[in-house]
Amino acid sequence: MEKRVRVLIDCNDAKGLVYKISKVFYDRDLNIENNREFVDKEQGKFFMRTVVSGNFEVKELENELTKIIPIDANLRVVEPKRKKIVILVTKESHALGDILIRHEAGELDADIEAVIANHDTLEHLVRRFDIPFFKVSAEGMTREEHENQVMMLIDEQKFDYIVLAKYMRILTFKFVEAYPQKIINIHHSFLPAFIGANPYKQAHKRGVKIIGATAHYVTDDLDEGPIIAQDVIPVNHRLEWKDMQKAGRDVEKIVLSRALNYVLNDRVFVHGNKTIVF
Amino acid sequence: MEKRVRVLIDCNDAKGLVYKISKVFYDRDLNIENNREFVDKEQGKFFMRTVVSGNFEVKELENELTKIIPIDANLRVVEPKRKKIVILVTKESHALGDILIRHEAGELDADIEAVIANHDTLEHLVRRFDIPFFKVSAEGMTREEHENQVMMLIDEQKFDYIVLAKYMRILTFKFVEAYPQKIINIHHSFLPAFIGANPYKQAHKRGVKIIGATAHYVTDDLDEGPIIAQDVIPVNHRLEWKDMQKAGRDVEKIVLSRALNYVLNDRVFVHGNKTIVF
Amino acid sequence: MEKRVRVLIDCNDAKGLVYKISKVFYDRDLNIENNREFVDKEQGKFFMRTVVSGNFEVKELENELTKIIPIDANLRVVEPKRKKIVILVTKESHALGDILIRHEAGELDADIEAVIANHDTLEHLVRRFDIPFFKVSAEGMTREEHENQVMMLIDEQKFDYIVLAKYMRILTFKFVEAYPQKIINIHHSFLPAFIGANPYKQAHKRGVKIIGATAHYVTDDLDEGPIIAQDVIPVNHRLEWKDMQKAGRDVEKIVLSRALNYVLNDRVFVHGNKTIVF
Amino acid sequence: MEKRVRVLIDCNDAKGLVYKISKVFYDRDLNIENNREFVDKEQGKFFMRTVVSGNFEVKELENELTKIIPIDANLRVVEPKRKKIVILVTKESHALGDILIRHEAGELDADIEAVIANHDTLEHLVRRFDIPFFKVSAEGMTREEHENQVMMLIDEQKFDYIVLAKYMRILTFKFVEAYPQKIINIHHSFLPAFIGANPYKQAHKRGVKIIGATAHYVTDDLDEGPIIAQDVIPVNHRLEWKDMQKAGRDVEKIVLSRALNYVLNDRVFVHGNKTIVF
Repeated sequence: MEKRVRVLIDCNDAKGLVYKISKVFYDRDLNIENNREFVDKEQGKFFMRTVVSGNFEVKELENELTKIIPIDANLRVVEPKRKKIVILVTKESHALGDILIRHEAGELDADIEAVIANHDTLEHLVRRFDIPFFKVSAEGMTREEHENQVMMLIDEQKFDYIVLAKYMRILTFKFVEAYPQKIINIHHSFLPAFIGANPYKQAHKRGVKIIGATAHYVTDDLDEGPIIAQDVIPVNHRLEWKDMQKAGRDVEKIVLSRALNYVLNDRVFVHGNKTIVF
Repeated sequence: MEKRVRVLIDCNDAKGLVYKISKVFYDRDLNIENNREFVDKEQGKFFMRTVVSGNFEVKELENELTKIIPIDANLRVVEPKRKKIVILVTKESHALGDILIRHEAGELDADIEAVIANHDTLEHLVRRFDIPFFKVSAEGMTREEHENQVMMLIDEQKFDYIVLAKYMRILTFKFVEAYPQKIINIHHSFLPAFIGANPYKQAHKRGVKIIGATAHYVTDDLDEGPIIAQDVIPVNHRLEWKDMQKAGRDVEKIVLSRALNYVLNDRVFVHGNKTIVF
Repeated sequence: MEKRVRVLIDCNDAKGLVYKISKVFYDRDLNIENNREFVDKEQGKFFMRTVVSGNFEVKELENELTKIIPIDANLRVVEPKRKKIVILVTKESHALGDILIRHEAGELDADIEAVIANHDTLEHLVRRFDIPFFKVSAEGMTREEHENQVMMLIDEQKFDYIVLAKYMRILTFKFVEAYPQKIINIHHSFLPAFIGANPYKQAHKRGVKIIGATAHYVTDDLDEGPIIAQDVIPVNHRLEWKDMQKAGRDVEKIVLSRALNYVLNDRVFVHGNKTIVF
Repeated sequence: MEKRVRVLIDCNDAKGLVYKISKVFYDRDLNIENNREFVDKEQGKFFMRTVVSGNFEVKELENELTKIIPIDANLRVVEPKRKKIVILVTKESHALGDILIRHEAGELDADIEAVIANHDTLEHLVRRFDIPFFKVSAEGMTREEHENQVMMLIDEQKFDYIVLAKYMRILTFKFVEAYPQKIINIHHSFLPAFIGANPYKQAHKRGVKIIGATAHYVTDDLDEGPIIAQDVIPVNHRLEWKDMQKAGRDVEKIVLSRALNYVLNDRVFVHGNKTIVF
């Protein structure tokens, strides 16, 4: 049956990979609709993302490819279908709102399964869009107790990715380990500048002339995960830290949505602490 | 003998091109050091730039590739060697100066064969770098007479490209036709805004909040040739047109040098009125 | 009574203006909380925006200032209160959505009185936010008939500004003349490049390496009104025009919201075809 | 005698400062050609830079102003004349070259008194411009011994500012203390990210998507001095650290020259660890 898939390969680099892979496509009479590859020479790693279309069975294509790529290769043959996301928020609406509007417009290749918050500030907004909203207050609980409740809620959903759209709580090792390469965060600074709390206050204090935002996968090292997207805007001495916070919101939401778009379209490879974004 | 070449192919798109081309490389045991390809679906055109290394004869590689690519394909197998350029200027030194400094530092993959000017303002600067300087005054001449002298001078040089580094004269059809895809110009606006004379005055009058610069191949349509690179900087109401001109110089020189770098590294394909820059 | 106002003055430049104006503030023991001024020397025009606070009557302050500024001066003493806007849209939700989310978050210094559209595509979204939505279909009508209906609807609202958040219809002279300096539009190109219809198609065809968006006051010259804000993003040969359109949406919405923020905070002076933005 | 000066005032904020200062200008019939002021409310500090012209004696104007500004105020009345700079470099030519070209074009409001280097790599380039070049090799010396020689050389020059145009040595406390607010450095990262050695290697390792450069006053805290200007460029996974270094050079030179331009035009106030740039 006529179909279109994304073939995603990362493996140790070896001579003839492009030839061997494109031979599989050619022998099966597939169209290459889009093709990007990259070799990290320092690390000796090969990355390839190819969109192919034609008459074929996914399983068979996988088998054919598996035969000719290195034994340690990661191979995914992905049919482009809408993914599912769960969004975690606290009180600020800009990043969440940007995703909601894109979702409503059909511009987000994902269904929003649920929004989970530690405050109820955003409940009204979320309900406007007929999306399930869950509040898990952290009051009177240990961090672990709170997280357990959040994780239970998450695990009840179907999801491909967890999006931290300004979720202002630090995640424990346990949480992060439970969802490897599944958690995407927006940090409100140009990482690695201003790691940790109150980056706008830090930026204001340091007197920087540019502020930024960073979307990254969450790993157990706080604010140290692989960066997916970054952007910046100029500021000057006239901005107090709250003005920077306000100005920064536009960058935060755009960068998060951009990163989310890359991830939902399977355009991101993670290698060590870095990303390859095709 | 061990060598490294850039293989540049553009042709009508066809199934199996990547496979067939990579097979040639694989059969000859060549390393693919860098590979970029692009299919313009609207136009049905295929573009590929691959850096390969290994033991081979350039002529033989060309022959092999010619056999398997479409009959109308443009194929170039280019050994990465320093190219030669001739620079045309008028009075402003920033774009020329940027090239001279890069040249001196060994960061420009080109030798500057000559600088030709219609004024002697920049003679002193050029002579500081021991580079031949020729003044061809336009005074008392028709445009054609002046251009004929300039063209004679150009034709006496060995050159791959002619760089207009703020050459403030309009070229005739005859001049442009003589050097197809050989002339690179920096226009001091974000084209296609402010075509023609005095773009900064035009920009000031229009009250834009951003100004820019555009490096492009020169074709017989004034300021309408294929764009290679563009960049911009913010401006505001405080800048008079002369301030914009001053501020714009930084963008002009960076954009021209960036475009020149692309061209000298054979990273630019021209297709119709557009470029593909790998 | 303790209050805070924005004093907005534009007039022909004259010696001693700053002195005389600041004397009025000083004599009345007012605090200058923020002060910006600008002299356009070419035009001989003086612009000043000062935020003052203290115990005073607005009327009296106006009277005092009127005495000492030139007779042809424009003086406004504005109390910072939420303004009212009417939004016109067609089918695209990104610019409207951005305003709705800011409005919901209390970050927009305005109440949205109504959204008027020539299609019902966005009705559902607007109703989610409990904001009045009016559809005025243009089908089977002349341009004038349609506009008359829209104008009647607008005139029934209380409003300070009309925001064209991707309203894809050309306005007649009559419409524009009816609301001088009241209509703010987002044009989906870096004006003055790509005036008119389908700027992304134009941009794609021209092969630009940067696309942009422009927020401007609407005057009777199509896409020629005073520019309030502009921004850009890089593009490359990989983007088809529809990809440019998609990528451009982020710039469009941010630029419109930024411009709107300036206008709502009385930070914009219009002079001829230009703006001074403090 | 008709003259034009820059009046620079910073002091604790107080009511009536603008009034009192503008009164001095008005009473003496001076033209205000340009006026910028800023109040840092958090710190309670007032900053003002006014360009005035007319018939007056500088000394008298200073006296008049001194009478009406707070006793702790810093007042400077500066006649706009070319300043003098000494440039320190190591081996890279881009930042130095950019300054040399601007200097040659008459676009730098400064005379270059000398270039001092710890290597002779750039001697040839500097001599091309007929500017004194001094090499002070650090070989076989302690840091202190080397610095003493450099300081002796500096002190033999007339200079207003010392420009570190990619001077790759760490300065001692003694050196920095000797020239307070006189040393301007370009750091090859977007500070405070990647403080210290090899910022491009650090940036590459961290996998950032944007790199930048920072021009700042040098204080005894390494890379922690007041920031004057910053800018950035996008990068991606394709760039190895040496490519980042190469790409970063354009930002470095532009940012340094921009900062230098601000400083030479007396547009920068330093307050604590921050700058106000008018």
